[in-house]
Amino acid sequence: MKKLNVITSNQGKYEEYKDMLADSFSVSMKKVHYHEIQTDRLKDVVVHALDDLVDHAPLIIDDSGLFIDALNDFPGVYSAYVMRTLGCGGILKLLEGEKDRGARFECMIGLLEEDKKIFKGVCKGSISHEIRGEHGFGYDPIFVPSGYDITFAEMKTDQKNELSHRGKAMKQLLEYTLS
Amino acid sequence: MKKLNVITSNQGKYEEYKDMLADSFSVSMKKVHYHEIQTDRLKDVVVHALDDLVDHAPLIIDDSGLFIDALNDFPGVYSAYVMRTLGCGGILKLLEGEKDRGARFECMIGLLEEDKKIFKGVCKGSISHEIRGEHGFGYDPIFVPSGYDITFAEMKTDQKNELSHRGKAMKQLLEYTLS
Repeated sequence: MKKLNVITSNQGKYEEYKDMLADSFSVSMKKVHYHEIQTDRLKDVVVHALDDLVDHAPLIIDDSGLFIDALNDFPGVYSAYVMRTLGCGGILKLLEGEKDRGARFECMIGLLEEDKKIFKGVCKGSISHEIRGEHGFGYDPIFVPSGYDITFAEMKTDQKNELSHRGKAMKQLLEYTLS
Repeated sequence: MKKLNVITSNQGKYEEYKDMLADSFSVSMKKVHYHEIQTDRLKDVVVHALDDLVDHAPLIIDDSGLFIDALNDFPGVYSAYVMRTLGCGGILKLLEGEKDRGARFECMIGLLEEDKKIFKGVCKGSISHEIRGEHGFGYDPIFVPSGYDITFAEMKTDQKNELSHRGKAMKQLLEYTLS
């Protein structure tokens, strides 16, 4: 089975990847330090990081973010930092009294084999009024995907992967690598 | 008079530098794109950026941030991004009902002549309960320096430069370059 290194220090992310990739790849989690540049675009972060990581190929990295309409796409590319400092509670506070609760998760996966390739997945939804659910990680307890009334954190991993930003990007990656 | 390029796209910042440097240097504003890395430390941003900018020496760059105690130092290194998305209003909302309003501004100036040198200035203070004043830029209308009861934005440039994070870092730079 083909090997693939998942470059991340986020255990929750790795678990999702393992679930999605286990049938097709022999995956390992690798914690490698690389520079993420400051930019408002996820794609720039991923493309720039791939250049730092050639020694670890074949590999995937991703950058994901939550983009909230009423907050000018905050926290966006800086979602991980905002989670560490403000958490889900901070986001709910910023949206107090706000009628427009629209948001989207975006995921950009960078694949580095012989070539670089980027896959993008988007999941539209809204921000809940309170923290709900125990599964997942990050902003999952406050994100309700469109067409549902439960948060990502109230879904089992399989259900979330089916419709999530990361699942959608991964589906494209699998179609590409297995075709 | 010695030349010095101020690398910034922030007009307000440049004006402050011009005020402080005009007696000692012939300063020009230069807008140059350079990569800022994602890190929680201002110093890493500045050191990394200096490596990108050798062609433009002699030069100074800075990175500044507002670090709020009750928000785990948010917005910190990402202060510019948070200003663009949430603004001063977002910060006040995050601190609603919060008793601890302690905060500090930090400024890290990188000087590149033959050598690299870093100068750090810190200004302690607190976050006001409302937006006040018309001077300055960024978070100045909500930052009250320790020992005062007016915000940076209610001070004239001279008074602000005397006690600000940027002014303090600049004082060290001047002592260094003129000694």
